[in-house]
Amino acid sequence: MINKLASKIQKTHAPICVGLDPMLSYIPEHILKKAYADFGETLEGAAEAIWQYNKAIIDATYDLIPSVKPQIAMYEQFGIEGLKAFKKTVDYCHEKDLVVIGDVKRGDIGSTSAAYATGHLGKITIGSKTYSAFDEDFATVNPYLGTDGIKPFIDVCKEEKKGIFILVKTSNPSSGEFQDRLIDGRPLYEWVGEKVAQWGAEHMGDSYSYVGAVVGATYPEMGKVLRKVMPKSFILVPGYGAQGGKGADLVHFFNEDGLGAVVNSSRGIIAAYKQEQYAKFGAENFADASRAAVEDMIADIDGALKAAK
Amino acid sequence: MINKLASKIQKTHAPICVGLDPMLSYIPEHILKKAYADFGETLEGAAEAIWQYNKAIIDATYDLIPSVKPQIAMYEQFGIEGLKAFKKTVDYCHEKDLVVIGDVKRGDIGSTSAAYATGHLGKITIGSKTYSAFDEDFATVNPYLGTDGIKPFIDVCKEEKKGIFILVKTSNPSSGEFQDRLIDGRPLYEWVGEKVAQWGAEHMGDSYSYVGAVVGATYPEMGKVLRKVMPKSFILVPGYGAQGGKGADLVHFFNEDGLGAVVNSSRGIIAAYKQEQYAKFGAENFADASRAAVEDMIADIDGALKAAK
Repeated sequence: MINKLASKIQKTHAPICVGLDPMLSYIPEHILKKAYADFGETLEGAAEAIWQYNKAIIDATYDLIPSVKPQIAMYEQFGIEGLKAFKKTVDYCHEKDLVVIGDVKRGDIGSTSAAYATGHLGKITIGSKTYSAFDEDFATVNPYLGTDGIKPFIDVCKEEKKGIFILVKTSNPSSGEFQDRLIDGRPLYEWVGEKVAQWGAEHMGDSYSYVGAVVGATYPEMGKVLRKVMPKSFILVPGYGAQGGKGADLVHFFNEDGLGAVVNSSRGIIAAYKQEQYAKFGAENFADASRAAVEDMIADIDGALKAAK
Repeated sequence: MINKLASKIQKTHAPICVGLDPMLSYIPEHILKKAYADFGETLEGAAEAIWQYNKAIIDATYDLIPSVKPQIAMYEQFGIEGLKAFKKTVDYCHEKDLVVIGDVKRGDIGSTSAAYATGHLGKITIGSKTYSAFDEDFATVNPYLGTDGIKPFIDVCKEEKKGIFILVKTSNPSSGEFQDRLIDGRPLYEWVGEKVAQWGAEHMGDSYSYVGAVVGATYPEMGKVLRKVMPKSFILVPGYGAQGGKGADLVHFFNEDGLGAVVNSSRGIIAAYKQEQYAKFGAENFADASRAAVEDMIADIDGALKAAK
């Protein structure tokens, strides 16, 4: 899967993923209206609206991009119906040959971590049959519990040729409360980054490891350091666009081969039609606005990478 | 909810929760057989088996205990069908007036953390209607992302009078890799514990905060320190029984009022019939074995607390 992600990035010149993090407030009125007319103002109605919204955005952008990153929390808040929309979205992205990064930020220990890994990346055995539950290609994982939380994921990843991105330095303002604290003169996120490199060495693809890291676009200096700490790990970079990150800030997240990072934008793309810059498309053509925003994001990052050469 | 948990513990003399973490390998043959006969060897069949297994254990123990802790990973691995069994279990425990601690270990930032909080503890608004998705009473939360990850949970908890338990020192062998590292002379888990106390001060019940902590039974010395760092926080204590913790190790997790901790046992109770000590019940009477194991656990902890006075 990491090989597929790398080769798709090379083909599209787009080291990005579209964050499919739908909020009801982003969804155009005409979609909500139709979904509520068909299913009522219910969890089912909301899930239908989310699904139709996602589908239109995927249809309008899939040929430009290598990957998507659905944020499961945005579906989980609608309970079972929301999670059905999550699963439908994952399956549809696979139909479009997109790499799906499940932003699930799970993390537990032993058999529990193994259960999460099975549910999101692996196969479950029931009697004489096996099934995939959510079947993403990558999952994001929280490192706070240490190796006991990570190893079960790596075991499943080895079996399925899938991968994980481990939270190292997150994009939010308070991420420093614990992540930046100094331990023997180095911040915690560097120690976590070092572990990512170690864990990653166990499960290598052609040029990169199946074990990647999450480092926020909002902390470019730290990205520069972490790039060197984890030379073989892909970095998933949230915080572009709406959270403040720009292409020029991101060049040091990449290696010299132009690979090694995949930059996520969520609101900036899926709710592009709400921004002044794309308002001309109107709510009816929200998916075209998303396509334009993807094109601009690719140009911004590709331009910054070329300028840095 | 924290008041309810405290008063139920006082009434039952049982500062414990039963970990409803079903694995197919725990479930007696006769339940599996019936579920597979009705629904096939499918995700639905597995979910039905889990639900019947849980229901029998709840029926056999609910009058002895204040709370349960379903581990969502064990349901999530069966996808949508598994999560339906999770929701059914939560609802049934509420019918039996049990406090439900959703062991979900979620943690993200801003609107994403808010979405998790909404899904597990709060209400979601759809048009003019509101719904509860999973509706647990407490959720476990990962602190790695800092205040941005915790505050949205506390906001929802205030509205709903619900609570959270934040991972501080987990019960697993490798928990020390990051949690024990020294920062200005004190381990990370103490810094997290201090934050728990600060966050908790914002949302107090009668005697205890709605913001609790997770500290593993396997680290009694650290529990003793953390008890003092977070005097007003309930400590959720995993790792009793199967993971090695014993009643006598746990007395320092409690305050002098006999409150302040709730000790979890999962496998030791739900799969009691597989242990030599309870083998006499046989697989057919697995739920009676669970009841006996609950009685023994209460006697062990209550005895240890009395001996320590």
